[in-house]
Amino acid sequence: MVKKYKNTDSESYTLGTTLTFKLLNNKAKYAKKLYFHPLLKKDDVYNKLIMLCEQYHIPYEENQKIFRILADKENCFVIGQFSKFYKSLDDGNHVILVNPQDMGNLGTIIRSCLGFGITNIGIIKPGVDCYNPKVVRSSMGAIFSVNIEYFNSFDEYLQKFSHHAIYPLMLQATESLSQISIPSKFISLIFGNEASGLPHSFLKLGHPIIIKHSNTIDSLNLPTAVGITLYEFTKNQFNRGV
Amino acid sequence: MVKKYKNTDSESYTLGTTLTFKLLNNKAKYAKKLYFHPLLKKDDVYNKLIMLCEQYHIPYEENQKIFRILADKENCFVIGQFSKFYKSLDDGNHVILVNPQDMGNLGTIIRSCLGFGITNIGIIKPGVDCYNPKVVRSSMGAIFSVNIEYFNSFDEYLQKFSHHAIYPLMLQATESLSQISIPSKFISLIFGNEASGLPHSFLKLGHPIIIKHSNTIDSLNLPTAVGITLYEFTKNQFNRGV
Repeated sequence: MVKKYKNTDSESYTLGTTLTFKLLNNKAKYAKKLYFHPLLKKDDVYNKLIMLCEQYHIPYEENQKIFRILADKENCFVIGQFSKFYKSLDDGNHVILVNPQDMGNLGTIIRSCLGFGITNIGIIKPGVDCYNPKVVRSSMGAIFSVNIEYFNSFDEYLQKFSHHAIYPLMLQATESLSQISIPSKFISLIFGNEASGLPHSFLKLGHPIIIKHSNTIDSLNLPTAVGITLYEFTKNQFNRGV
Repeated sequence: MVKKYKNTDSESYTLGTTLTFKLLNNKAKYAKKLYFHPLLKKDDVYNKLIMLCEQYHIPYEENQKIFRILADKENCFVIGQFSKFYKSLDDGNHVILVNPQDMGNLGTIIRSCLGFGITNIGIIKPGVDCYNPKVVRSSMGAIFSVNIEYFNSFDEYLQKFSHHAIYPLMLQATESLSQISIPSKFISLIFGNEASGLPHSFLKLGHPIIIKHSNTIDSLNLPTAVGITLYEFTKNQFNRGV
């Protein structure tokens, strides 16, 4: 029996065909079931979904009710149900979000991280549930290609990864992002909450940096700031055509 | 008599205290009226709003109904009503959005433009209404500090500003954003629609550029792409402390 999604559920949903393909192509082992709307066209896309379900032994059914419950008023004809999964961060480059609160923002950030080759994302609690269907959607499915780990505090994160080069992004910092030199060790880019940024204490940590902009705005939007930072730290890598 | 906002209205609204201050501090001449929720605290902030209303001869009233109509379920106690205004683009640097369709994205882009010192934004129709209260809000009030002009076609824009250095942002481009040299003339940064990007024909225009990223994602989110591009084009200016 399907109910409206709650953050405490152990399963979540991909709303739409594109997201469901991303689930099946990247994390099929977590897919539990596919639901098709009775109005879904039985075309090549449908056949491909059925083929993947049979390949991975995923049950599927036609079911109108789940669309009313989970995707009301939306233009959505395929839903994938999957078990939420968490994986400890690998020792690569990290993006760490301290208390992110907006679901659309989190999804957009996950998409940018994957785009710039950072597949390890830490979230310091409290922070939004990364598997809310709204986050899954705004990630455009990128969430199925990254590791996400929640930490109870930033200290808990730091105890594991203090050997990283730590870069807190802060309006109070003086070193400009565009003048950094890329370190040879793994990096951890740290971003604060949408409304309040990082606490002042982060100024004493690693290499605090600022994205310089005019003072006519208070700050950049969080996913924009993350995107710019990722771009600057990785651009040489992508110009070499990695 | 206040009704639900429609794009064809000649007036729009700032929902919330911060946005209403931005309106009064930057475009007081377009402010028509302020509305206060009966539950608004009569504190210093309230007194400052009243003072500005009297300074600019803007009427105000307590009115609960307008909050139900315009800001239902929101934590909003102040609404500003203003006349929509449009101003032809100045001959400075431009951001041109071809057929933008998402209101939150447009507001976020306006905020980034102001942050990086670009105060001239062109929108090629069809495109969302920049004065929808959702755009006003996601701009965080930046909309009251920029010029926005709508054009019927990109050709109409180009006829006026063909002397600019034109940079279409395109996934099909080969020149990398991070390797451009900043021209001495005014620039026009051109961005396509969220779903489809710019039409292929823009490859023949000016200097098409790409933000290089991994092919694990189809594209970056539009406001992220705009933010990164603005950052790269303006970073020397802001490092000099403008």
